[in-house]
Amino acid sequence: MGRQKEYLSKLSRFFQIRNLLLRQALAECLGTLILVMFGCGAVAQRVLSGGSHGLFLTVNFAFGFAAMLGILVCGQVSGGHLNPAVTFALCLLGRERWRKFPMYFLFQTIGAFFGAAIIFGMYYDALLLRPGSFNFTSINNTAGIFSTYPARHLTLVNGFFDQIIGTTALIVCVLAIVDPYNNPIPQGLEAFTVGFVVLVIGLSMGFNSGYAVNPARDFGPRLFTSMSGWGGAVFTARDCWFLVPIFAPFLGSIIGVVIYQLMVGFHTEGEARDKKQGTVQENLQLANVASSNNSKEATKEIY
Amino acid sequence: MGRQKEYLSKLSRFFQIRNLLLRQALAECLGTLILVMFGCGAVAQRVLSGGSHGLFLTVNFAFGFAAMLGILVCGQVSGGHLNPAVTFALCLLGRERWRKFPMYFLFQTIGAFFGAAIIFGMYYDALLLRPGSFNFTSINNTAGIFSTYPARHLTLVNGFFDQIIGTTALIVCVLAIVDPYNNPIPQGLEAFTVGFVVLVIGLSMGFNSGYAVNPARDFGPRLFTSMSGWGGAVFTARDCWFLVPIFAPFLGSIIGVVIYQLMVGFHTEGEARDKKQGTVQENLQLANVASSNNSKEATKEIY
Amino acid sequence: MGRQKEYLSKLSRFFQIRNLLLRQALAECLGTLILVMFGCGAVAQRVLSGGSHGLFLTVNFAFGFAAMLGILVCGQVSGGHLNPAVTFALCLLGRERWRKFPMYFLFQTIGAFFGAAIIFGMYYDALLLRPGSFNFTSINNTAGIFSTYPARHLTLVNGFFDQIIGTTALIVCVLAIVDPYNNPIPQGLEAFTVGFVVLVIGLSMGFNSGYAVNPARDFGPRLFTSMSGWGGAVFTARDCWFLVPIFAPFLGSIIGVVIYQLMVGFHTEGEARDKKQGTVQENLQLANVASSNNSKEATKEIY
Amino acid sequence: MGRQKEYLSKLSRFFQIRNLLLRQALAECLGTLILVMFGCGAVAQRVLSGGSHGLFLTVNFAFGFAAMLGILVCGQVSGGHLNPAVTFALCLLGRERWRKFPMYFLFQTIGAFFGAAIIFGMYYDALLLRPGSFNFTSINNTAGIFSTYPARHLTLVNGFFDQIIGTTALIVCVLAIVDPYNNPIPQGLEAFTVGFVVLVIGLSMGFNSGYAVNPARDFGPRLFTSMSGWGGAVFTARDCWFLVPIFAPFLGSIIGVVIYQLMVGFHTEGEARDKKQGTVQENLQLANVASSNNSKEATKEIY
Repeated sequence: MGRQKEYLSKLSRFFQIRNLLLRQALAECLGTLILVMFGCGAVAQRVLSGGSHGLFLTVNFAFGFAAMLGILVCGQVSGGHLNPAVTFALCLLGRERWRKFPMYFLFQTIGAFFGAAIIFGMYYDALLLRPGSFNFTSINNTAGIFSTYPARHLTLVNGFFDQIIGTTALIVCVLAIVDPYNNPIPQGLEAFTVGFVVLVIGLSMGFNSGYAVNPARDFGPRLFTSMSGWGGAVFTARDCWFLVPIFAPFLGSIIGVVIYQLMVGFHTEGEARDKKQGTVQENLQLANVASSNNSKEATKEIY
Repeated sequence: MGRQKEYLSKLSRFFQIRNLLLRQALAECLGTLILVMFGCGAVAQRVLSGGSHGLFLTVNFAFGFAAMLGILVCGQVSGGHLNPAVTFALCLLGRERWRKFPMYFLFQTIGAFFGAAIIFGMYYDALLLRPGSFNFTSINNTAGIFSTYPARHLTLVNGFFDQIIGTTALIVCVLAIVDPYNNPIPQGLEAFTVGFVVLVIGLSMGFNSGYAVNPARDFGPRLFTSMSGWGGAVFTARDCWFLVPIFAPFLGSIIGVVIYQLMVGFHTEGEARDKKQGTVQENLQLANVASSNNSKEATKEIY
Repeated sequence: MGRQKEYLSKLSRFFQIRNLLLRQALAECLGTLILVMFGCGAVAQRVLSGGSHGLFLTVNFAFGFAAMLGILVCGQVSGGHLNPAVTFALCLLGRERWRKFPMYFLFQTIGAFFGAAIIFGMYYDALLLRPGSFNFTSINNTAGIFSTYPARHLTLVNGFFDQIIGTTALIVCVLAIVDPYNNPIPQGLEAFTVGFVVLVIGLSMGFNSGYAVNPARDFGPRLFTSMSGWGGAVFTARDCWFLVPIFAPFLGSIIGVVIYQLMVGFHTEGEARDKKQGTVQENLQLANVASSNNSKEATKEIY
Repeated sequence: MGRQKEYLSKLSRFFQIRNLLLRQALAECLGTLILVMFGCGAVAQRVLSGGSHGLFLTVNFAFGFAAMLGILVCGQVSGGHLNPAVTFALCLLGRERWRKFPMYFLFQTIGAFFGAAIIFGMYYDALLLRPGSFNFTSINNTAGIFSTYPARHLTLVNGFFDQIIGTTALIVCVLAIVDPYNNPIPQGLEAFTVGFVVLVIGLSMGFNSGYAVNPARDFGPRLFTSMSGWGGAVFTARDCWFLVPIFAPFLGSIIGVVIYQLMVGFHTEGEARDKKQGTVQENLQLANVASSNNSKEATKEIY
């Protein structure tokens, strides 16, 4: 036992990374990998089993709990954003430094890429079995397992709004959960609550285009599919749909920040500021009273 | 970073609302918006996808978690009622001031109105695609996405009792959750628990007429549908059904308050009061003993 | 506001019951009412909607969360047993007084009776609509909404074991949750956890006969059905099946207590006892040492 | 009451086991029994009811909550591994002693064996009713209720990777949950979180071969089926598949430990170590300063 611990300690020293930002980016990478692995795995299970081993509800549960677990794995280290739109919103509010944003975005995308790769490996046999699985024009095309494509009824404009609304809803709820002046959640339960947010977005906003609401979660797996059999069609399909889940979420992020701040955030912040100032002023007044008392006493002493 | 924070702070000061009631009403508005957006979104997803992307169970989950998230977003500011019947019950018990009631009712209804509007925008393409979607006599009529209509087997009398029973059940559970003398929930988990109450009401009382149990959640979206294509039929349909989810919940609220207080509330309150009085009497006795001792000592001193 | 509070306070004094046992029994009554109302309501919704508004999974969720809410409503007052078999197990272990048992049994059954009555009223129209709903030989017979009947494949012997196994599983889990020496749950989350126990029993032990595992939950509603249209057949059906969910759970309760105590309970109890004795002995030794020191010092003083 | 407590205390002393390892092994046995009983019970309910009383989603929920309850029952005593692969991972990291491993493995397998036996007894009638239930070549063969068999599309190689990936995912999440330097979960909620991990693995990795990811959970029930009617075919079926869920999980366990440590664990450990050393050095410096001050003062005193 003793020797094992010594050896483990040596290993730990050898592999330890001291750069904080890199460590955080690695944690984000693992968290997003878990999100995409479990989430896309559930889609794969539903699609490949023809519905016998999954429903749309199953996929929603999987993405919700996958977000929860991803945040739990990396939250203490990196904050557990798992989503460039969330990082963006927190930067907008001055809660994270802007230089974190590109680094997180990159590593979140890398994590999503490998999450998709793991599911691809896991269901390789089942994918091969379906005729036309990798053929983008076939009805059995399975690219939708990994990244989102709009439903046939959806126009690009409506799809753009769909992604904006979904991300706005996500950001408003996430901001309420992490707001330091409006903190409703017992410490340590934020991950669970964000999981429920992702679940409920899937339950009510998933029909149009599969609720990506996350540029990394959509682009990483899409890149993977383009490299592993489906080809460039994953980018050109449906009038270059792939651009929507990359750009719309950032717009949604801005709108979400504005709505939350206007309707709740500014007021709770202000109240906290007022209280603080009140205390300061009170102290000042007390000090004045005290000093005037002193001066009175001093005056007394003189006479 | 420094300049951004300064700018944000200026914005915060500019938009801060100092009127407490208005701030609370705004928060209720956002909370109810979230409740209706996620809840009605799930109904839309189920109806418009023809069941492939939703079940009745999905709708129940969505309303439950939507209530949870709505309460989390506004609970610290306004109490997170999201429902005029809940505000009414708390006013009846003297836990909220009566002048809050009309203000909350109004803003909850406004929030529900805009929640419905968001879902309308989100699923606009899918709604347009269904022939007869906006036609109230068509079988494809989608008004039921936004507000409740009774099932064909339901008479108006049974429907009235259905809404009363549902609201009574809601109020009894909510009162137990927020009762200061019977507080079973760890601080911060009230929102989760109320979410489960809404979920279970949907699981067991949703078949008759879709468990509105909330005047604002039903009337706000109904107003929206009347203005956006379905017309006045949303009010006249099924013998003016729309009046039932407005008035029955308040009756249910009264009955719920009476049942909870008679069976649990009065006794736990009384116990707390008895304990307090006991302490006071004990203190009085101690004081008597002490004073008699003093008098004895005083007597001693005299002699 | 002031006058309202005064009036409420007077009401509270007037209706306050000071007898502890009666108060506890009333709370148990309300808790069991909630359990049966939500649980049987979900069965009604599933049966009467022909599956469109419910699945067996829905019923399981409803019973699980209904148990959770029932415990939350009455747990602080009465312990939240909701089940004579649980009361029996806690009496066996000496954690509750035996005289509570008949009182709790009676009021739990009364609560279950009225819970069934509420659901009967709520779905009256839907029940009337089904031809042969109240006719026990008809295929549309709906008695199964309120109390349990065995599946056609089940013999009475297997059914008896089914109820024993189900109750044993329930009691083992409940004992672990409330064991003072093996307390794994954060204070206030016991209700949630028991809800998950009931849920999982339904998910895996519900196929044979609908997992009553609770004499009150089964007998109360059965009595109600016998009085409201279904007649005495509810008692004579399937070789007097109704006796099984009354007697088997108590046997299961005994077996559950024995298994939990033999495999976990006695050892954790013993460990706690050993520690306590250890402390006592240590104190004794310290006292001895001290006294011997004293005697030494005393001896010193002598010389 | 007094006499009952005395008697219970005597019983407790008589049956108390003082050997810690045996007590822990017994607790693991009960925990794994609960896991397998509820989990396989849900599979039985789904298979034997032909889908009317269960879905694949139901099975996932049952295994998730069964893991949660199993951990709750034995977690305080034995750590609540329920899975030799988890014990193995914790031994690898030096958090459990290696001599626990064979003992836990044995008793986990025994618990799984009896869990299967209970479900066999519970659904005996329903099993008998299916023609060809115990016949391994029949289409109605029910061996899959108790242990896992690969889907028809799965090759042995892919199945091996499937089990490795599943266990890796499990171990990464479990390590994050129990990591002392990266502790995101409120004390007492670990069991709930691990339950969600098991649930989500089922939702997204269950289609290939039923996500055993646990040598004991698969081998114990398989042994039981070989002895109770299905015969040796349970071992020879599908090219001796039974070896995969025994050996692959340990490989997955190693990979999971490596991934978690490289991406999160080593760095958080290192940070904690750095802080500690920092404190030590600071103290040393303070001591130096102090001593130099002393020496200065001493010097002062001299002159």
